Amino acid sequence: MRLIYEADIEHLAIGAALLGAGGGGDAYLGKLMAQKCIREKGPITLLRPDEIADDAYIIPTGTMGAPIMLMEKIPNGDEALKSLRELEHDCGKKAFATMPVECGGMNSTIPFIVASQAGIALIDADGMGRAFPELQMTTFTMLGISASPAVLHNERGDRVVLKTLDNPMLEYIARGITVRMGGIAHCAMYGMTGRHVKDTSIPGTMTLCMALGAAILATKINKSDPIEAIKTVTRHSIFGEAIVLFEGKIIDVERRSTDGFVRGKAMLSGMNAYAGQQLRVDFQNENLFASVDGTPVAMVPDLITFIDRTTGTPITTESLKYGFRVVCLGIPTPQIMRSPAAIDMWGPRYFGYDVDYQPIESINP
Amino acid sequence: MRLIYEADIEHLAIGAALLGAGGGGDAYLGKLMAQKCIREKGPITLLRPDEIADDAYIIPTGTMGAPIMLMEKIPNGDEALKSLRELEHDCGKKAFATMPVECGGMNSTIPFIVASQAGIALIDADGMGRAFPELQMTTFTMLGISASPAVLHNERGDRVVLKTLDNPMLEYIARGITVRMGGIAHCAMYGMTGRHVKDTSIPGTMTLCMALGAAILATKINKSDPIEAIKTVTRHSIFGEAIVLFEGKIIDVERRSTDGFVRGKAMLSGMNAYAGQQLRVDFQNENLFASVDGTPVAMVPDLITFIDRTTGTPITTESLKYGFRVVCLGIPTPQIMRSPAAIDMWGPRYFGYDVDYQPIESINP
Repeated sequence: MRLIYEADIEHLAIGAALLGAGGGGDAYLGKLMAQKCIREKGPITLLRPDEIADDAYIIPTGTMGAPIMLMEKIPNGDEALKSLRELEHDCGKKAFATMPVECGGMNSTIPFIVASQAGIALIDADGMGRAFPELQMTTFTMLGISASPAVLHNERGDRVVLKTLDNPMLEYIARGITVRMGGIAHCAMYGMTGRHVKDTSIPGTMTLCMALGAAILATKINKSDPIEAIKTVTRHSIFGEAIVLFEGKIIDVERRSTDGFVRGKAMLSGMNAYAGQQLRVDFQNENLFASVDGTPVAMVPDLITFIDRTTGTPITTESLKYGFRVVCLGIPTPQIMRSPAAIDMWGPRYFGYDVDYQPIESINP
Repeated sequence: MRLIYEADIEHLAIGAALLGAGGGGDAYLGKLMAQKCIREKGPITLLRPDEIADDAYIIPTGTMGAPIMLMEKIPNGDEALKSLRELEHDCGKKAFATMPVECGGMNSTIPFIVASQAGIALIDADGMGRAFPELQMTTFTMLGISASPAVLHNERGDRVVLKTLDNPMLEYIARGITVRMGGIAHCAMYGMTGRHVKDTSIPGTMTLCMALGAAILATKINKSDPIEAIKTVTRHSIFGEAIVLFEGKIIDVERRSTDGFVRGKAMLSGMNAYAGQQLRVDFQNENLFASVDGTPVAMVPDLITFIDRTTGTPITTESLKYGFRVVCLGIPTPQIMRSPAAIDMWGPRYFGYDVDYQPIESINP
């Protein structure tokens, strides 16, 4: 058990954006809202999965859609809570705690807001250990947990309770609803027992996000190297040690919002050790595939994240802009994300690449 | 109170297809299923709105989407019942009766199936007095009844409970869901009290459908004129007397399924009194606008229906085919459907025609 204060949320937002692999939404709004909640209602209780009862009922919360829409359609701040309440109404039971479905700026801060508003605990775990573009891409799905019933809520107050036979169909229908809700929806889904959380989630990811964020921020004060700080924290986690994939200037960003996703690619011209080389990173909300001069250097499910060279601040796909000087970092995913069943669900072939998955550390030894 | 037997369903299907104005789905499947229900469970109780208690709870049922999809994706037969049950679960109360939202082959027979399966009554009324392509186009909406919560169910078993701030948003989101459910969804919505039914529905339409169907079928035995039979029945109803708009051969049908609707047009070359003239009828699930040689002869909300010249059998938009010899009939809608507020909701301008509504009987005196 750990109490979460305003400063922890500052760290969380930075670390979650890093593990978000470009997706999961910009942390700024979620951070401000979570900090306001803590100022008004006091610290939030963070529980490890092994600290909750097997029969406790947990309802994860977050958003789905194109995160960039949050910049146009500012939420009221209680949409995810209302989704949780609607799900409780449908199930006829109250949530003991909430948790994130993924790591990502917006999607890791929103559950803290919900926990504070509802006066419940937050579980230190998630279902991806990163962000992924589709909601069925979770360790929950892989291990047999249904995402139904799922609730989607928009900022107007329109809402949907969705129950499907499988999680890919949930993603398909929910994505269509999200588009008609205006591109973004606030959700509660994957309601499950404490036992299920222990058996299927990736534990400790919120603590890791906060450790990463704290380490990155500390380098601003120490004038030390943020990349070294990230390497140190990841080396001591269930993830592998972060790897520098490229350093350069963004020379082109292609970005389009279609079907409830932001898809596109970023092109970088190399600097320093990478002078004369070109990096291409494709994204669908999250960064999916990175190649240097046509040769793959990292691919899903390993994490590909852009950070500001000087400050170490992670840059989400919707914030990539021409001219930015950035470092492209890769982080090896935990082993649970790399099983054959896992690679079927979120490996490069699922996203249309005619390439077998190669672990990032084997490509970049 | 009236008991409905198998033969009544035969009549209902024909009359509802006529009032369906080309839409509401082909009656065939719904008719067979309703008759099977009656064979197995006995007659269905039909109640007039004035026979129900003010505080009785009524849940209308039906389908939404492109009716033609029902020919590809045969329903199991219990989808609408499951939608009703899901709505009961959400509201925490049981339905005393069901009723149709619209007149139309499929959408008037399905509530009979639900009534039989659930062992509840069927109310002799609907919310359109015809079929319309969009679900907010009801006298219920016009008089302030919310369609929420609405339940949509597909043949796989996926389902959605939808709650919106207004009925046009419900249509918009539900249409998107219907498309992702495969083009057709089985629904329960517009849950309301007996008082609301009395105040907002168009009463007696199921009885009228059965009277129309019985009259049309009788002409086959008597070898009498089905059009005269339709005129006689409509003359003695809240609708106006049917008017022959055109007689001819279908020379072209354009039909495409887009956005969960079937849109298109039919072109007819005139025969007998109409030789040398051309009729054009545009449809969006239902027939919307009819013009002869470019001059409007009928438009929404008045009913435009094609019938087989010899048998009087109504032809839905999805069954229109090159070469059919047909009569195009117009039927004046009840006055409640022609108020200024009503014309705003479903008059020609709503559907993109730059024409003020002209009552069919004033164009065809």
